[in-house]
Amino acid sequence: MRSLARFSFNQATANNWALAELVDGCAAAGVGSVGLWRAPVLDHGLARAAKRVRDAGLSVSSLCRGGFFTAADWLDDNRRAIDEAATLGAPVLVLVVGGLGGRALDDARAHVATALDTLVPHARAAGVRLAVEPMHPMYCADRGVVSTLAAALDLAARYPSRDVGVVIDTYHVWWDEKVWSLIAEAGAADRIAGYQVADWVTPLPEGVLLGRALPGAGHIEIPRYTQAVTAAGYTGPIEVEVFNADLWTRPGPDILADTIAAYLSHVVPNE
Amino acid sequence: MRSLARFSFNQATANNWALAELVDGCAAAGVGSVGLWRAPVLDHGLARAAKRVRDAGLSVSSLCRGGFFTAADWLDDNRRAIDEAATLGAPVLVLVVGGLGGRALDDARAHVATALDTLVPHARAAGVRLAVEPMHPMYCADRGVVSTLAAALDLAARYPSRDVGVVIDTYHVWWDEKVWSLIAEAGAADRIAGYQVADWVTPLPEGVLLGRALPGAGHIEIPRYTQAVTAAGYTGPIEVEVFNADLWTRPGPDILADTIAAYLSHVVPNE
Repeated sequence: MRSLARFSFNQATANNWALAELVDGCAAAGVGSVGLWRAPVLDHGLARAAKRVRDAGLSVSSLCRGGFFTAADWLDDNRRAIDEAATLGAPVLVLVVGGLGGRALDDARAHVATALDTLVPHARAAGVRLAVEPMHPMYCADRGVVSTLAAALDLAARYPSRDVGVVIDTYHVWWDEKVWSLIAEAGAADRIAGYQVADWVTPLPEGVLLGRALPGAGHIEIPRYTQAVTAAGYTGPIEVEVFNADLWTRPGPDILADTIAAYLSHVVPNE
Repeated sequence: MRSLARFSFNQATANNWALAELVDGCAAAGVGSVGLWRAPVLDHGLARAAKRVRDAGLSVSSLCRGGFFTAADWLDDNRRAIDEAATLGAPVLVLVVGGLGGRALDDARAHVATALDTLVPHARAAGVRLAVEPMHPMYCADRGVVSTLAAALDLAARYPSRDVGVVIDTYHVWWDEKVWSLIAEAGAADRIAGYQVADWVTPLPEGVLLGRALPGAGHIEIPRYTQAVTAAGYTGPIEVEVFNADLWTRPGPDILADTIAAYLSHVVPNE
């Protein structure tokens, strides 16, 4: 029977829904877990947000996001992000590592490793696991130079698995002909720190950020991914995270209802 | 000294320039080679186009493009494309293999292999080499399910190298962390059938097709690619192929002049 047991509603799917209403809406819908974003959490107030979520009986599957190591203040900013994740009780801080930022590609990738070296002790002390998210290669220049699950695993392998893992997002990895063996490898090495789903539709919009779709509306065989990460040993939350400009114009409760329906029909295989 | 010896002007860079004027313009500018596209060639008349190019003293580096094995008439259409390449004296037919076309991704990829099996004997008989072009993963759903140079090489390896090679286009492969070893591997196996250059700029436009840039205007280290394919043993034409909606609004001779300037400054390393 399909259930919401592993479902987590990522806040970015209802980008304009105020945090308090989102928390109440999730609790009312029987959703037990949310993925939160730093900006709305800080807008609401970190301590207040943590209390609100806790009081509603929700857990926080991840905090999105640290990374962007191209920014001038990346070190302080990522230390703050780690502390915020700890305050929220989020076990995982998702890292979108940033694009070129004026560096040559090899140098930008090397800088990511340097940044991780610097951050891992702080994260370990805070009890937060860093999760490197490989980004679709179309974001290589401007959002994330870690373009494949293989590259993310290579980065993570330099640290204990409890400190650094990877996030597998169907939208970013679905084109990769090696993805199935990489998921198995990631699971065997205990590196799957998170699993997010969104579907791929074309044509892509200008800027290619806000054209993702709810599961089932596009081309990705999402149940196969759910089965693969589960078979690889990942039994944690399944976040639906959909950046979609049209979806964002709708009322939060409607988005949540459609997201739950999509999850039950197109994310969890027959259990 | 930098020269135009290896330069080939791909017709798509000046998409609205009539074939006859393009041929005359290239000859007048000292360009010895052009990459042609099927539609404008057929518009001009195949035999007339072949004669026009030959009479101008130009060689045809490649014909773009066959592939799109998702189309109902893919077999007949690709046989015609092979014959057209032979008529034009193009040694290479570039294959953009097509997207999902309603198939699951694995099935779409398997279908590409089946299509190649069917076409190779015809191509061999015509003396035309098929060149599989890996497409940037952002085109996986709708233009090409062969998303990496590794996958293209795996496909090509099933045939003699004189029959099937790969096209390396900087725009499609630049994000790949394995690209340098793959280029070396492709050269060692005598699989580099073509080398095309365009640069990557953001933001990507809607549809992500017409936002490529002339070499030097974007993020790709193009001279490094030229050196890599040359070091791998490829000494053939270097096609500049840039799909850019703004560029296309300009007069053909201006586009050619800027393309030549970009080539000399940002494609060929110091020789």
